[in-house]
Amino acid sequence: MALVVQKYGGTSMGSVERIRNVAKRVAKTYDAGNDMVVVVSAMAGETNKLVALANEVCEFPDNREYDVLVAAGEQVSIALLAMCLKAMGYKAKSYLGFQVPILTDTSYSKARIESIDDKKMRADLKEGTILIVAGFQGVDESGSVTTLGRGGSDTSAVALAAALKADVCEIFTDVDGVYTTDPNICKDAKKIERISYEEMLELASLGAKVLQIRSVEFASKYNVDVHVRSSFNENLGTMVTKEDKEMEAVLVSGIAYAKDEVKIAVMQVPDKPGIAAQILSPLSDANISVDMIVQNVSEAGSTDFTFTVPQADFKKALSITKETAEAIHAKDVLSDENVTKVSIVGLGMRSHAGVATTMFQALAKEGINIQMISTSEIKISVVVDAKYTELAVRVLHDAFGLAGK
Amino acid sequence: MALVVQKYGGTSMGSVERIRNVAKRVAKTYDAGNDMVVVVSAMAGETNKLVALANEVCEFPDNREYDVLVAAGEQVSIALLAMCLKAMGYKAKSYLGFQVPILTDTSYSKARIESIDDKKMRADLKEGTILIVAGFQGVDESGSVTTLGRGGSDTSAVALAAALKADVCEIFTDVDGVYTTDPNICKDAKKIERISYEEMLELASLGAKVLQIRSVEFASKYNVDVHVRSSFNENLGTMVTKEDKEMEAVLVSGIAYAKDEVKIAVMQVPDKPGIAAQILSPLSDANISVDMIVQNVSEAGSTDFTFTVPQADFKKALSITKETAEAIHAKDVLSDENVTKVSIVGLGMRSHAGVATTMFQALAKEGINIQMISTSEIKISVVVDAKYTELAVRVLHDAFGLAGK
Repeated sequence: MALVVQKYGGTSMGSVERIRNVAKRVAKTYDAGNDMVVVVSAMAGETNKLVALANEVCEFPDNREYDVLVAAGEQVSIALLAMCLKAMGYKAKSYLGFQVPILTDTSYSKARIESIDDKKMRADLKEGTILIVAGFQGVDESGSVTTLGRGGSDTSAVALAAALKADVCEIFTDVDGVYTTDPNICKDAKKIERISYEEMLELASLGAKVLQIRSVEFASKYNVDVHVRSSFNENLGTMVTKEDKEMEAVLVSGIAYAKDEVKIAVMQVPDKPGIAAQILSPLSDANISVDMIVQNVSEAGSTDFTFTVPQADFKKALSITKETAEAIHAKDVLSDENVTKVSIVGLGMRSHAGVATTMFQALAKEGINIQMISTSEIKISVVVDAKYTELAVRVLHDAFGLAGK
Repeated sequence: MALVVQKYGGTSMGSVERIRNVAKRVAKTYDAGNDMVVVVSAMAGETNKLVALANEVCEFPDNREYDVLVAAGEQVSIALLAMCLKAMGYKAKSYLGFQVPILTDTSYSKARIESIDDKKMRADLKEGTILIVAGFQGVDESGSVTTLGRGGSDTSAVALAAALKADVCEIFTDVDGVYTTDPNICKDAKKIERISYEEMLELASLGAKVLQIRSVEFASKYNVDVHVRSSFNENLGTMVTKEDKEMEAVLVSGIAYAKDEVKIAVMQVPDKPGIAAQILSPLSDANISVDMIVQNVSEAGSTDFTFTVPQADFKKALSITKETAEAIHAKDVLSDENVTKVSIVGLGMRSHAGVATTMFQALAKEGINIQMISTSEIKISVVVDAKYTELAVRVLHDAFGLAGK
């Protein structure tokens, strides 16, 4: 007998009919002899409806009240699923965040889980009750309702699995798992059977579509095996787990890309200590997160300093940088919105040389010019002209032999 | 400076536009220098939508989960109203049932309030915060969400007013107050300015449309002045309060009627001790509540035993009574669905003779035959043929001089 945590997203809970299917799926796992904790999201569309109401009431809804509002969506879905299971003859009981309790900090709308009390849940599990827990929500020390941010139900599920030392955490979604790259770009993209937490984090742009990134950090911290799979079929999905020897043998696990970054370059900056901080700190003060940073080797006392920021912050970042450039007597500020970041990710890079060479050669062969390069231990990212996005992804997918049979 | 509890029903909270109006109204009372606790219902229609979802999921939804589900409606409306007030620049904070906490028993869907902890609320009030409390919901000792039954927000408001020793509890609704009778029947029905708890309870059929009956019991127990008034205008409504000398001077305060009762008569019952109990206990075992009971004076060892039950229970009650009749050797069971109960209610009856005579004479003058009579200290009810309902109400309204000018 195992303890299984399952999480069903909004699409899986999208209608009464689908909730019935979820109930059947839960019942099947329970009947196989497992203890069950089920985490659910709001019915698809419901959270958006509540957000729309808030925006109709006022332009900048109060943070605390916003969380009270949107938490209502999960309240509805846990009640419906628990009812459904009870009508099928099972012992089931819903849990709101405060009832567990799932204690969080007070950062409304992006709260972080601080602790989970497993006492009540354990007592109910012991009696054979299936627990249906509201995802996405918690309660802070003062008893206020908090929410974990979009996709937070994944984090709820992983955190519950950690607290209860569950044998597995199954995240049911509308896709089959994590793929070697976007199947919309590469028809022969392959489902990855096992992937390490670290790779999953680095593949954010691929992974975020199936699993909230924060939940992966949580899983990694507490060593929770997370099985990402489809709620619409019985196929095995992708197991996100701690790295093992087998994974290290694979050079590259996946190819990710991000179209939503833009490049800003400060030209001919006087090359003095402290210049990088002078350029970047006004941006972080403005809450703009800088992703890639590249500084060329200095020539004749000046250097070029290039970085990327999210598309959404482009205008603000550009105007801040232009002010800085003037202050530090840089020659010019150039920018380019038509760029894409393409990354290869794999544990094998750590122990195998030549991965970067393979990557650059493959791109060069197709005449794709590399504008920026940045590397981490298990990831190499390049910035290329946006028009090459699909070509670059396909070329790299082939170059590292990721295609399915 | 006074402490004011206001309650706004679903119609008053029916849209974002209306919620804004409620916020303005609350703000106005607050600006006049009052401490404010505001109790709200779910937006009109929302509770019905949630109930429909439950019924779609299964025929007999689990009681505990049903309460979790329907409580979500009030959660949405407290958040929206609190947001709205904060956007207007006021200090406001929403309270769910468990956050107060409003402690109830565990009778899901018809829970009774056991105690209200005023500590957190008092601290917030002291800081000038307007409290927005979810009506209709509470929490039981084990931390489960409970609800108080339809119209329960009235009871929430009165209970909070009692716990906080508020100066007044204002129930805002879509009518102007309590009338001397149904204005749809009597065009000259008059708004009652002050009415005692006891009369209000006896006028249930009139009163229930504007105020949940249980909230009146609560108000009476804790001596809370309840001001029932319209949220769509500034008129004073009806003050439900403890009786005073002035009220006793009024013979009859109002005329109520109930069309949803049916009459069942057991004919020629052997007149022995214990017969009434023999007839009624199978009905109470079947959870059918019997309203009026009349037993005629016995003649030649047998008597006729007549009672009324709710229309909804008619078939079940009739079949049970027929079985009983056979067992106790009664001659026959007659029934009549076309009856109406008409009642006159007034504190003055206690000290003034002749009220019954005036009532019977007025009805007789119009040829309205009285089928059953039952009396309490401040109420006389008669059962008449349903076709005389409107006529009987109008005749009595005139006979006791209740018409407005």
